[in-house]
Amino acid sequence: MEKTALCPGTYDPITEGHRDVIERCTKVFDRVIVAVSASSRKKPMYTVSKRVEFIKRVFKGREKIKVISFNGLLIDVARKENASVIVKGLRAISDFEYEFQMAQMNKKLDPEIETMFLVTHPKYAYLSSSVVKEVASFNGCIKGLIPEEIEKEIISSFKNKKNAGC
Amino acid sequence: MEKTALCPGTYDPITEGHRDVIERCTKVFDRVIVAVSASSRKKPMYTVSKRVEFIKRVFKGREKIKVISFNGLLIDVARKENASVIVKGLRAISDFEYEFQMAQMNKKLDPEIETMFLVTHPKYAYLSSSVVKEVASFNGCIKGLIPEEIEKEIISSFKNKKNAGC
Amino acid sequence: MEKTALCPGTYDPITEGHRDVIERCTKVFDRVIVAVSASSRKKPMYTVSKRVEFIKRVFKGREKIKVISFNGLLIDVARKENASVIVKGLRAISDFEYEFQMAQMNKKLDPEIETMFLVTHPKYAYLSSSVVKEVASFNGCIKGLIPEEIEKEIISSFKNKKNAGC
Amino acid sequence: MEKTALCPGTYDPITEGHRDVIERCTKVFDRVIVAVSASSRKKPMYTVSKRVEFIKRVFKGREKIKVISFNGLLIDVARKENASVIVKGLRAISDFEYEFQMAQMNKKLDPEIETMFLVTHPKYAYLSSSVVKEVASFNGCIKGLIPEEIEKEIISSFKNKKNAGC
Amino acid sequence: MEKTALCPGTYDPITEGHRDVIERCTKVFDRVIVAVSASSRKKPMYTVSKRVEFIKRVFKGREKIKVISFNGLLIDVARKENASVIVKGLRAISDFEYEFQMAQMNKKLDPEIETMFLVTHPKYAYLSSSVVKEVASFNGCIKGLIPEEIEKEIISSFKNKKNAGC
Amino acid sequence: MEKTALCPGTYDPITEGHRDVIERCTKVFDRVIVAVSASSRKKPMYTVSKRVEFIKRVFKGREKIKVISFNGLLIDVARKENASVIVKGLRAISDFEYEFQMAQMNKKLDPEIETMFLVTHPKYAYLSSSVVKEVASFNGCIKGLIPEEIEKEIISSFKNKKNAGC
Repeated sequence: MEKTALCPGTYDPITEGHRDVIERCTKVFDRVIVAVSASSRKKPMYTVSKRVEFIKRVFKGREKIKVISFNGLLIDVARKENASVIVKGLRAISDFEYEFQMAQMNKKLDPEIETMFLVTHPKYAYLSSSVVKEVASFNGCIKGLIPEEIEKEIISSFKNKKNAGC
Repeated sequence: MEKTALCPGTYDPITEGHRDVIERCTKVFDRVIVAVSASSRKKPMYTVSKRVEFIKRVFKGREKIKVISFNGLLIDVARKENASVIVKGLRAISDFEYEFQMAQMNKKLDPEIETMFLVTHPKYAYLSSSVVKEVASFNGCIKGLIPEEIEKEIISSFKNKKNAGC
Repeated sequence: MEKTALCPGTYDPITEGHRDVIERCTKVFDRVIVAVSASSRKKPMYTVSKRVEFIKRVFKGREKIKVISFNGLLIDVARKENASVIVKGLRAISDFEYEFQMAQMNKKLDPEIETMFLVTHPKYAYLSSSVVKEVASFNGCIKGLIPEEIEKEIISSFKNKKNAGC
Repeated sequence: MEKTALCPGTYDPITEGHRDVIERCTKVFDRVIVAVSASSRKKPMYTVSKRVEFIKRVFKGREKIKVISFNGLLIDVARKENASVIVKGLRAISDFEYEFQMAQMNKKLDPEIETMFLVTHPKYAYLSSSVVKEVASFNGCIKGLIPEEIEKEIISSFKNKKNAGC
Repeated sequence: MEKTALCPGTYDPITEGHRDVIERCTKVFDRVIVAVSASSRKKPMYTVSKRVEFIKRVFKGREKIKVISFNGLLIDVARKENASVIVKGLRAISDFEYEFQMAQMNKKLDPEIETMFLVTHPKYAYLSSSVVKEVASFNGCIKGLIPEEIEKEIISSFKNKKNAGC
Repeated sequence: MEKTALCPGTYDPITEGHRDVIERCTKVFDRVIVAVSASSRKKPMYTVSKRVEFIKRVFKGREKIKVISFNGLLIDVARKENASVIVKGLRAISDFEYEFQMAQMNKKLDPEIETMFLVTHPKYAYLSSSVVKEVASFNGCIKGLIPEEIEKEIISSFKNKKNAGC
């Protein structure tokens, strides 16, 4: 039976850490749906359609990977997309606690859908979308922190228009 | 493509928490191999063959589930059994840290095999094989903590030969 | 000597987890004062008088339980109400750290007043007022997450005016 | 109604941190029972009767405090002594996790008995019976780490027979 | 070779905990540069020049200690000031995780600059600039929480203009 | 003024993670003393003189680094060697808690000696002497986990006499 995994997140923007988790999912599951939360609570820097576009560019030509945006309960997305499992990357203890609460709430909302966790690769353990944006805003070098495919565009989003630190 | 998950542990003995994790794996993967560590470092109370037998009794008639014992590197078992993923249940922060180190070491030993984590169901969050044995040794009630199929035999392993607390 | 416990919180709104902690306090102490923080720093959804009313409705007819609101230092409320102990429920590590800092600060401000902690029941470990509001806002089922007495009114606070997920 | 609290531990030997927790319990509850675990699993240095004697010496003349030893399930001691609450001091995250599991297991074994936690005073946060014994064994100064009433006897237990570091 | 340490922070305002960390740095390194972040993201209560002035007042006459403000990447400040090490005080697990991520990011940006951590003195473990401001805003006693040199001015910043709780 | 740092540990045997911490210390301090604990409590596999020899071999020709063994209180070693600071590498939360307790105890024993922490490089975050020995004992590949200078001898300590996994 074909298995579909859902990788939800804000992806503002997608980092090398996110990419690593999505790639590894494709080795374990038949299809991977990257679900970008439209939620404005986190006040993302990029619009949801821009964030979707970034991810599509990174995984261009990959048939197993589908990128969507959503607004609502994750569990409803999982049902609609016929996903049997939600997959999240964990970097640290604080991730762990929040994600566990979410996993248990989702389990209560729909006991048929499981949440599974992957450990972030150690070399990306310090990485997050916000830290990338902070470094970029101060003209620091973000090479290797975000996928090459979107690097240029991310750098040009910041006022200094160059990435002198590299 | 058929996906096989490996659920390693000492299982001394299998608890309701372990059972819950194994059951949930069968919903996400095509085959589940329960791998009982023969390692004597943890000084298990039951022999490895007894521990395997307990698990087999619990999952009798379940074709997707296979129970084996192993002695050596987990990664070698995964390769031999053609498993693409190792699955562990996480109850708490301390589990989390140890399991993360193991996951990263295994990733280094074989980058092709992933480790994924499931959150233990909250009602089993306090449960471990050792706490069950401690309660049983003092004649406390262990009903609901271990699978019904092995309850009688576990209770009779302890000197009081009854489970008066229930 | 009669012992009074103080259960402070934002209660925006009271959840089944909060109720469980308050109930358990009544078994250990003679009187329990539920103290609702008027503080606007957390930007509560419900007014402080509405939050007090919700709790009063839930514990209607319970003579040992008194519900008040406060604005200021918790330690001043404890003194005024003659409470010898502040009681907080703990769900997770992150709660733990914040609450420990608060407990130690309060201890410094008044060494005569103790802070004690109760472990949240595992079945409510994933529960918080914010997660309830998030689920409700997306039309998810919140039955069993908040006390029955206020369920209808909470659901009707959200624009969808129904709770279709249940 | 009179309230009795149970303060269980190995107390091998009682430290200033333990004493602080017990003292603070006497302010919140009417009676405090210090219950010394006879369990040999932790391989205590002092016999259970010696450990009981140390605590009795420290709290001599204190009518609200009773010292007992026990062997078996804590919950059975609580019932027998008519205690409505078990009280534990928490120093750190690792304490927290273990104690939470114990609290939830005890809750399952007897839902009528609550477990509550007190935060260890910051000045004793680094203190444990084992660290005291380690320091003493190397002739380090343990003044202020254990109650004055037992200091001399503890020091004389170690081969150097003096406490030159002070 | 002379060694310079950088102690970065928001210092809004400097607390006794901060002072303790800076003092201890002067015992280990030849020069200590206290670097006050001008960043407005944390919405500080005091202006960056006021925060710098507070710290200068506290360490008046101390030749080894220099106070500066900065806006940008910490690593650029470290390079410019010729500091070989960034020093941070750690109070708790949550500090630890955030600071570790920062340390690893800074290591990536410049492998020549190390980050080292000092444990906050237990008596300041519950202390933070925000908790001080919260207590002061409710007229609680802040004596002993912030350096004596700035106490009067901090108290007078709050509307009650007195510190009745002391 | 010349600054000496003390890097204590069991080093059974030294790993690449240990080496990284010691190397980084030499960039921050003038002299680094690697102090190998003779303590038999952890039941080391290699004798203390063998463990000292391994480290000496790894840092051969490095004048800033001195390797010693010790038996007793760390604080006494620091005093004797005229070290102003003890440096420890931190990998994870569990390290953090234990090391914090030790740091605070040492601070109490001698307030003049500081303890500072370095974050382990992410690529060594999963590494410990015990995990290396476990992998080696099952014939797994330990290349890159321990310094090259001792690799051959470590492998030959294990009965299989080869390291087939590499």
